Order: sequence, then C-alpha cells, then structure tokens
Amino acid sequence: MSAAVKPKPIVELITLGDELLLGLTANGHLTYVGGQLRRYGVTLTRNVTITDDAPAIAAQFKESWGRANIVITTGGLGPTCDDRTREVVARALGQDLVFDPAIERAIKDRFRSFGRPMTANNLKQAYRFRDGEIIPNAHGTAPGLWYAKDERVLIMLPGPPNELQPMFTEEVLPRLIELGWLEDGESYVQLRSAGIGESALETRLQPVFARYGEDLAVAFCAHQGQCDCRLSPASDRLSRAALQAIAEECAGMLGEDFMGFGHDSLAKLCADRLRAADRTLAVAETATGGMLANSFTDLPGATKFFAGGAVCYSNQSKMQLLDVPEEILMQHGAVSAENAVAMAAGAAEKLGADYGLAITGFAGPCGGTHENPVGTIFLALYSPFGVWSKRLSYPGPRQTVKRRAVNAALDWLRRELIKAEDQPALPARAIGFDEY
Amino acid sequence: MSAAVKPKPIVELITLGDELLLGLTANGHLTYVGGQLRRYGVTLTRNVTITDDAPAIAAQFKESWGRANIVITTGGLGPTCDDRTREVVARALGQDLVFDPAIERAIKDRFRSFGRPMTANNLKQAYRFRDGEIIPNAHGTAPGLWYAKDERVLIMLPGPPNELQPMFTEEVLPRLIELGWLEDGESYVQLRSAGIGESALETRLQPVFARYGEDLAVAFCAHQGQCDCRLSPASDRLSRAALQAIAEECAGMLGEDFMGFGHDSLAKLCADRLRAADRTLAVAETATGGMLANSFTDLPGATKFFAGGAVCYSNQSKMQLLDVPEEILMQHGAVSAENAVAMAAGAAEKLGADYGLAITGFAGPCGGTHENPVGTIFLALYSPFGVWSKRLSYPGPRQTVKRRAVNAALDWLRRELIKAEDQPALPARAIGFDEY
Repeated sequence: MSAAVKPKPIVELITLGDELLLGLTANGHLTYVGGQLRRYGVTLTRNVTITDDAPAIAAQFKESWGRANIVITTGGLGPTCDDRTREVVARALGQDLVFDPAIERAIKDRFRSFGRPMTANNLKQAYRFRDGEIIPNAHGTAPGLWYAKDERVLIMLPGPPNELQPMFTEEVLPRLIELGWLEDGESYVQLRSAGIGESALETRLQPVFARYGEDLAVAFCAHQGQCDCRLSPASDRLSRAALQAIAEECAGMLGEDFMGFGHDSLAKLCADRLRAADRTLAVAETATGGMLANSFTDLPGATKFFAGGAVCYSNQSKMQLLDVPEEILMQHGAVSAENAVAMAAGAAEKLGADYGLAITGFAGPCGGTHENPVGTIFLALYSPFGVWSKRLSYPGPRQTVKRRAVNAALDWLRRELIKAEDQPALPARAIGFDEY
Repeated sequence: MSAAVKPKPIVELITLGDELLLGLTANGHLTYVGGQLRRYGVTLTRNVTITDDAPAIAAQFKESWGRANIVITTGGLGPTCDDRTREVVARALGQDLVFDPAIERAIKDRFRSFGRPMTANNLKQAYRFRDGEIIPNAHGTAPGLWYAKDERVLIMLPGPPNELQPMFTEEVLPRLIELGWLEDGESYVQLRSAGIGESALETRLQPVFARYGEDLAVAFCAHQGQCDCRLSPASDRLSRAALQAIAEECAGMLGEDFMGFGHDSLAKLCADRLRAADRTLAVAETATGGMLANSFTDLPGATKFFAGGAVCYSNQSKMQLLDVPEEILMQHGAVSAENAVAMAAGAAEKLGADYGLAITGFAGPCGGTHENPVGTIFLALYSPFGVWSKRLSYPGPRQTVKRRAVNAALDWLRRELIKAEDQPALPARAIGFDEY
C-alpha cells in the first residue's frame, strides 16, 4: 500500500566527477534521472556538478541536504582512490560507515562469475551507513546507499550509467512511490513541431495562449530543425482536460508542422507511420555516414520496417552497393541532386523496400566546391509515388550539419508518409524477419 | 598584449532550462564550455542547472556572482515569453537594460537575409546592460552579453548550441585570454586504456603511483569498455616533465591495453593508423545499425581511409549489398560467426578496401535465441593477413549493447593495426576521393 501523495518534492541531483566539468563525458545522469522523475510528475529542482574534491563534496551535500526533500548523488562510490563520496557524505551526515559482509560476498561472487581475481581495493565498496540500507547493483560491484530521516531521503548511486539506470528504475523509483513522493504521469503537455522557427511558432500560437493569460505556462525549446512547446497549468483554474484541449487546438493550427505530442523522435514518428501502412524503408548516405541509419536502428523492433542502408563514401561503394551509374558521378559529382536520386532509388530497389531516403553533401570542415560549399546537402526521397530531390544548406560544424541534414530528411519522410495516407494503396514489399 | 596570467579562476556555469531538468535535452553546454576551458588549463568549478523561474535564476545568479571570478549563463536570451534571464540578471546586478539600435539592425538584417518577416517578439533581444557590451552572434538573433566589474566577469550566452559554440570560441575565449584568465594547454595528462576494468587498471599502475604519494593526483573514468586515467600534479614538487615521464612509464606497463594520451576516440586512433599505413576500411553492421560507420564519418577527412559500409538489417540486404551467400543465412542465421565473416569479407571485397569490420548480434530488447540470447554479438575482422571472428556478450539496454559492441570492434581493429605494423607490407587498395 502506498502512502498518500505528498506535495511536489524538492529534488536535488549532485553529479560528481571532474570528467563532467572538464567536458570529457556528457552528464547523462541529469538526462536520465530528470527524465525518469518527469514521468512521475516531478521536475528536478536543481542539478549541481562539482569536482571530486572532498571539501567541495561536503559543502555541496550539506547545502542540498539542508533544503531538499530528496538528494541524489551520482559517482564516487567505486573502488579507486578518487572514489570518496561515501566517506565524505558519511562524515557530513554524522553517520558511521559499517562493513557489511553481505556486500563483500556479492562483490566476490561477481568477480568469481567473470573468472577474474578480485583486487583488494574493491573492499572499499562493502561499507554502508550504520542506519541506512543498500540499493543492490546487479551490473557492478558498488551498491548504492539509501538513508532516510525526517521526511528526507538520501540516495547515493554509482557513476556508470549501465549500473545507475537499472538501479534507479528497479529500486529507487518503487521506493519513492511507496513513500508517496511520486505520482503517475507528466505534469505538462508537450507539442513537437518541425520545420518552423521558435519565434514564428510562438507568434502562430499566441492567439490561443492570449486567451488563458497567466493561467497557462508556456516554454519553448528549439533544437536542430525542431521546436518543442511545453504547456502546463500555472494556476488551479486550468484543469488537465482544458490543457489537453488547448494543446489540441495548437496542434490543429500548426498543420503538418505539428509532429506530435510527447517525446517521440522524428525517426520514431516515421517508423510508426511506416509500420501502420505496412511499408518498408532503405536509406543511403554519404555525408551523414550512418547517422540516418542509426536513428532508425536505435528503435527497438526496427527490423519490422527497416531493410537496411548503405554508407557510401567512395565512388566505388556507390556503384557497387547501390548501382549508381558511373556517368552520374562523372558528370554531376557525388554531391548532386542526380546522385542523391540514384542513391535513394538504388537503396530502395536493391533492398526491395517501398521507400528510399538518401543524403549526400559536404559536412565539412574540408571539401566543398565553389558551387556547393561546405554545408550543402542534397536529399532524395524515392516512394511508391515517385522520386524527388531537395537542396539544403546548413552553417556550422560537422556534427551540426550532419544532425540538421538527418532531421531534414526525417521530417521530409514524415510529411510524405502523411500525404501517402490519402493516396490509393500500392502493393507493399516484404523484407527480412530477424529481430536485431 | 595580454595581461599577466592570474591565479586559476573560480568559474561557475549556470545552465538554464527546464528541458535540461526534465531530461528532454542533454546538457551539451557543460560538455562544450568545460571542454573549451580545459584546453586552457582551467577546470570549471561548478555547473548548476536550474529552472527558468525568475526567483530561482535571481538566487542562483547572486550566489555564483558572490563567489566566482567568472560566471557564465546559458539560455533564456531568446524572443519568447519564457526567455527572462536578461531581465532577471539585470535586476540582480542592479544594471539598467538599454535598447541598442545596433542590435535591432542586426536582428532585422538577419530576418531580411532569410526572406522571413521579423515578428515583434524578437525586439526583446535588442537590450543590453547599460555598462556592458554585447557578444556578437553570427548564427542567431540573440546577442550575448558581457559585463565586467572588479576583477569579475559575467558572460551571458544564448541556448542554441550552434549559436553558443562559435560565440564562445571566437569571442569569449579571446577576451578571457586578453584579461589573463587563461593559459595555453591542459593541466593534466590523460592515459586512455581499452579492454581492462577500472580496478584492474589501478592495481596494475599502483606501483608507479605509490612512488609519488601525495604529490600525484589520480582520477579514473570508465566508459563502455574503455577506462581513462588522468594524472595531475598535487604539489609543486611534481614538474610538468616529471608528470609526462610518469605517464609514459604507465603507458609502457599497459602494453596494447594502452590506447593513447589525450582525448582521441578509438575510431580516431584506428583512422590515424589506417592513414599512416595507407590502408582503407569498409564496415558492415546489423545490430549496431550505422553506429560503427558513424563513428568513422564523425571524423573530418574520413574519405581518406573510409570506403563506406552496409547496414544490412534484412537478409535480402546482406545478400544484395554484400554478397552474403543465402546458405550461410539459412544454415547459421544472421547472428552467427559465419555471417559476421561473410559480411566483413563482403564489405572489404565489394568496396575494394584492405580491412573489413563487421558486427552482427541481438541488441534487444526483443529477439535473441536460446543459444544466442539478447546481448550476443559476433564481430569479424577481414584484413590483408586473414579473417577472424569473435563472440561477445553484453548485458544492458539496447543503446549500451550497441555502444559496447562498436567499442569492442574498434578496439579489435586498433590492436590488429598495431600488429600489422610488424608484418611484411602487402599492396594497398585505392578508394574514392570526394571529401564529404
């Protein structure tokens, strides 16, 4: 039985590790923990990243523990000499650390199962707070630590994401639900749009927002050719149902620029439409070199609609993998509408897919021609209804050009799949069946 | 002329945006700003992510401004109603905001160059601090703001990464160097290792570390089959040259498990060796679906060694793109050593490359067989000296399995390229020349 739901908790996440501050590792814990709490109606109040230095950890922990209901720390529980979070926080809390033979056994068992010898430094990890519990770690040696006192909870988790993530979903969330800190569902509605800028999006939706004045909170987030708009109640006068109705009115005003509600990526939205229409896709890439294919194969069950793709950097690869005619490459070059069309058609036809989506271009920083400088991208889309190409141009570094090109290609496919729903059905083609 | 170098500055980065706390967007600003400062010997002292709420912004700004030499804020400078950082910080600083017609002109010019009408909400962005300067933004409408007082600097930057990043490198870093806050070069030496766990790595290197006691600071960071070890001086007794000598001794003790010094990725290290040996590579993937190809095509100049690759999800794609014999797929299945070898050889031979690297497996969460459950990966490597395969198994979610499989494949190629340096040279094959 769960306790009654409490007011929204103040939750602070302290992420430790110089590798984060030095820009060596992305702070995936913020994304993960924030995203998990969001699913339960809670917005993380604050995330602080500090160095692995003992005085800094102690000061930050005391500050957060003094004002939050839930404090989560990540990192610094491991076996090496720079792992000192356990000891520093114990001192700041005034809690003794006690050696727990059950933890020692689990660590030894883990090394035994890999057939590796356990080095002595691993025994550091066998200590827990005297009045605390452990959070079992099925994927690593360092257990997490749990300590609750006076309506406050401290949760300490190890740094490796493949250890932290299952611990958070399988152990931490159920305990927080049990204590009544979380409730099911998100506290806002998110509209996703594509192909429209942030200020234009607000201007288009402003007439709707204006009707609700201070009762409606609106937030925008633009990213690489997409723009999200989050709507949430800013007063009790706006019910959940009213919020949903506002979101739907906004979606209607955006037409095809509206991608969907929620968090689905462009690739996921394309995948859903392909599966619903029983259609299959093949891709071909030069400049984006696997990023387009990867955005589909990140989706579980991609096998159901995704036939595969070619990353054809060399001219030989275009001819050998996709039957691009040598004359096209000689006359127009690899970065051309003609080659993009030949790649899209080649991928679809060789792999027996209904749709072929191709990207070629110059991602930079080198390459490019006078006519087609760095940042020039040609897209082509082959479908049961015809084949088209498009020329685009993006400024910025290589990664940005790649990501923008992939998003533009995905958004184009999404729009074509919507249009295809009004077309007479043509026979679908079958692809393989393995589930990678 | 630059000012004399000052003591290490306290630098705080305040990243604004509910989308970060909600886990909707990764905090790329921490990675970018942290990484850029690292190149100039500075470790970011603290990063705080808070909500776009005015009181929270004001409180955090005052706290950071009270203790840091340099405060950097990101986000909330844009045109929409939820962009309030400029106004809130101005009030907290006690600085008036003044309308700057030069900013207005730049915004209007930008819209004109796109042939889009400027919506009125954009004019919010034309205000700056009365005693401050602007930081020009070549890629967006919102300029950054610069304010310096009493040996302290405030730097306010817009949220979109393609705007922030060039502003930071082209405008902010030169001004901070001019003021004497930065010096050239990193303050530590990083050793990267692959194929060895964190506790084993520390244990192997411990005899070296022990000789330097408290003078040497050591930090470890394990990530997906790699482990980095950062060495830095903890006292004045350890010179830069001594640190380098320690790092080189450690590298020697690790043999082939030592990847390199610095920050180069496995893909970059493979690329360097391929280019040095004038060798070329083709790849083939099922489960990792483009991630392997993408790790090479993220490198500028990949054209010089990377012929291309096939993402062959369907069986037809394996046969059509790579000439994998149907009998192999029927007898052994797509997730088998036999198919991995056929894919690696097919990719290299069809694309005329010296090396072929293939990954097949079950990334999950669905799929898998009794014999080869989810997480099973087969790698194959085709080289001028032969062809081999390897079976691996990784626990964890789809993304983790994909990343671990790609890293294992890259590390294998890296080791083979080292061995190949002692082999008699065989003729290299040529690939295309376009620079994507």
